[in-house]
Amino acid sequence: MLEARLVQGSLMKKVMEAIKDLIDIGNFEFSSTGFMLTDMDPNRFSVMEFFLHSAGFDHYHCDRNLSFAMNLHNLAKILNCAADDDILTIQAQGDGLAADSITFTLESPNQDKVSKFEMKVKKIDSQQFGIPRTKYQAIFRMPSSEFARICMDLSNIADTVISVTKEAVKFSARGDIRAATIACMPNTDVDKVEEATLIAVDEPVGLTFALKYMSLFTKATPLADQVTISLSSDQPAVVEYKMAEMGHIRFYLAPKIEEMNTEPLGENEDEMETEPQAESNPPVDTKAKIELWELTSFD
Amino acid sequence: MLEARLVQGSLMKKVMEAIKDLIDIGNFEFSSTGFMLTDMDPNRFSVMEFFLHSAGFDHYHCDRNLSFAMNLHNLAKILNCAADDDILTIQAQGDGLAADSITFTLESPNQDKVSKFEMKVKKIDSQQFGIPRTKYQAIFRMPSSEFARICMDLSNIADTVISVTKEAVKFSARGDIRAATIACMPNTDVDKVEEATLIAVDEPVGLTFALKYMSLFTKATPLADQVTISLSSDQPAVVEYKMAEMGHIRFYLAPKIEEMNTEPLGENEDEMETEPQAESNPPVDTKAKIELWELTSFD
Amino acid sequence: MLEARLVQGSLMKKVMEAIKDLIDIGNFEFSSTGFMLTDMDPNRFSVMEFFLHSAGFDHYHCDRNLSFAMNLHNLAKILNCAADDDILTIQAQGDGLAADSITFTLESPNQDKVSKFEMKVKKIDSQQFGIPRTKYQAIFRMPSSEFARICMDLSNIADTVISVTKEAVKFSARGDIRAATIACMPNTDVDKVEEATLIAVDEPVGLTFALKYMSLFTKATPLADQVTISLSSDQPAVVEYKMAEMGHIRFYLAPKIEEMNTEPLGENEDEMETEPQAESNPPVDTKAKIELWELTSFD
Repeated sequence: MLEARLVQGSLMKKVMEAIKDLIDIGNFEFSSTGFMLTDMDPNRFSVMEFFLHSAGFDHYHCDRNLSFAMNLHNLAKILNCAADDDILTIQAQGDGLAADSITFTLESPNQDKVSKFEMKVKKIDSQQFGIPRTKYQAIFRMPSSEFARICMDLSNIADTVISVTKEAVKFSARGDIRAATIACMPNTDVDKVEEATLIAVDEPVGLTFALKYMSLFTKATPLADQVTISLSSDQPAVVEYKMAEMGHIRFYLAPKIEEMNTEPLGENEDEMETEPQAESNPPVDTKAKIELWELTSFD
Repeated sequence: MLEARLVQGSLMKKVMEAIKDLIDIGNFEFSSTGFMLTDMDPNRFSVMEFFLHSAGFDHYHCDRNLSFAMNLHNLAKILNCAADDDILTIQAQGDGLAADSITFTLESPNQDKVSKFEMKVKKIDSQQFGIPRTKYQAIFRMPSSEFARICMDLSNIADTVISVTKEAVKFSARGDIRAATIACMPNTDVDKVEEATLIAVDEPVGLTFALKYMSLFTKATPLADQVTISLSSDQPAVVEYKMAEMGHIRFYLAPKIEEMNTEPLGENEDEMETEPQAESNPPVDTKAKIELWELTSFD
Repeated sequence: MLEARLVQGSLMKKVMEAIKDLIDIGNFEFSSTGFMLTDMDPNRFSVMEFFLHSAGFDHYHCDRNLSFAMNLHNLAKILNCAADDDILTIQAQGDGLAADSITFTLESPNQDKVSKFEMKVKKIDSQQFGIPRTKYQAIFRMPSSEFARICMDLSNIADTVISVTKEAVKFSARGDIRAATIACMPNTDVDKVEEATLIAVDEPVGLTFALKYMSLFTKATPLADQVTISLSSDQPAVVEYKMAEMGHIRFYLAPKIEEMNTEPLGENEDEMETEPQAESNPPVDTKAKIELWELTSFD
């Protein structure tokens, strides 16, 4: 039996808004430690992981692990019915393995409106995507709104190189008739701590990513003031939005391997500041990496 | 000759916004008692009736009944030109029966801008839809924004059963993979009178309606803080937005007759709270009802 | 070598928003007096001219005239990356004639973000559209937002006659089933000077314009509180948005020649106030005028 009550029910609504364009069917897993929602995007380039601690709920009772798959668009429609101050309760009756429908209840604070939604679900075995946890070469943290802005600004040009040195994080894109470099320098001299930009580098790193995915990740911007991005030349990048003590949403994205365009854009090539990929970073074979994930993604 | 002046000209703009998606050509009728605009939707499931008392106008002179049909989309475009504080004057010169164009004048309060629009109209005979007025089994009144919200929330699931008992108004919808019940309890313990929910029941009633129409009716939400819905098992429902002393906009909607889906959604059927249609309410033959309307709709 | 720095970088963003729907490829010309951007719309009915004084820049150095063509949609995308308080620097290295790429740099005020964009450009010879400057029969100035509103309100009816007398500026349009006249009277009794409407008439004038172009011009509304429109029966109209001491954006539009629709709309024709074109204003041959422009448009 599962009963999980979240007074701040609108949190779950924001999470669904953040991920529903990235994945169709999510894997839901309730256990004694909390609620985990994961999926790989249909093209197998990225993995999303949302986790909410059991302590993040106002009431949480789960006497048996419960795993099921659910269409996230349908769930988003249900959660969109939540008013800002509605209380959300998620329930599954009986033996977890037998449950094939889940009930979501939204209650107004003064109890004069109660909305109950029942959703059919598909039972599945527990799934874990085996993301190897390693030490990263470079990590930076910046305002999540600033990261979203940069992804939007570069979205019309080309895939983006992210390169990190102690001095700056540089986002570079080079198209046929345009090229752009946006440099963000460390900055802790700010009015509010969430406006800071921090950079920690063991070894400089430069990797190319499909900007389309990064842009989709930035839909999580309303969930956290800051975003933390961890990069290593032989690992998927981790883009993490941490929700205070409650949990987190993490996106993993495999870097692209491609012939770097090192042709000059025009005659004044030395004007441009596109960073060439550091030679110490051998290209990652995206295809191989995804297959590695697949091998490790079922326990 | 007709001359009707409305200082609060933006009211008419709101009315057009409320109804222009429901009907194409409206029947306009000016008489000494006021202005009535009616139409049946093209599928003949619903009837709309907007009425503005002659006393609701700031100046009203109509020495002969005037009936004409006008394209509401075109009229909405004209009225969209009205600034919030513009004064609207509607004029038809000469004998009402001869008029084939109507002039709408918008004046800014300080008279530095005057916009005059002339519209061709089609003369018609006076029409009345013969809606039988009877005592209803159940009536409820609730905040119009709350009713709009419920219609929106259920709009993706299925047609909706509205059932009213003394304890609650319940809106239920049951689709293939989702089911929902939203219950609104009477509540007069509110800060503002327009936030109250009131229920008056002679006999409990449960009827199924095409949610699409209810959703279209809720475009009238900006016209009134509260909506009043009257139900009887052998009558079209009445959805009324009352504009203080000025007039009202009423929508009439025939209930649907359909095999109620009483199949369980999943194995935990007793979890669901979908109300079965009360057995004392024999199904209404929608088709028959509409024909009854047609017979009585022309004087 | 060119280096032009504009602390109020968002100004250029607003200019691009104002003109990017009107023209595709703009002619850019930097000289010691400032920056001029011109183009004729693809249909050759209108000419746009944006000018920014060298003194309007915070730093301006241009040691040789520089002329090039650039796709305005691409430039708008770059300038959309500018935050409201970003500083814009435009640079071209080396001999102006050899430059085939231009660099746009956006810097945040506290220097913690620097975005650099390089754009390929096409070198062209200097171009000037030979707009003859003459005395106009009638000039009026009104709030730019009011002019935009009128263009929008009339946009669904037909091309528009603008007629100016000492008493009023009248905008009239006459479609098959609708006709409209909007009259604006001189008004200097206003709280703020930018709300005034002024009219100066040597000789009354009435001309017909393609409303589509006027509507496109009104995208410049955010650049200036007032718009000044100059009319003569044998000249293109000038629609000017003046940006204080910095510069201006001017649109030139050839009047249309067409058979004025003088048929009554209905039986109550005398109700309508459509101004017949003043007989002292012979129709202008649009085609001929445009050819005149073409002959004079290259130095």
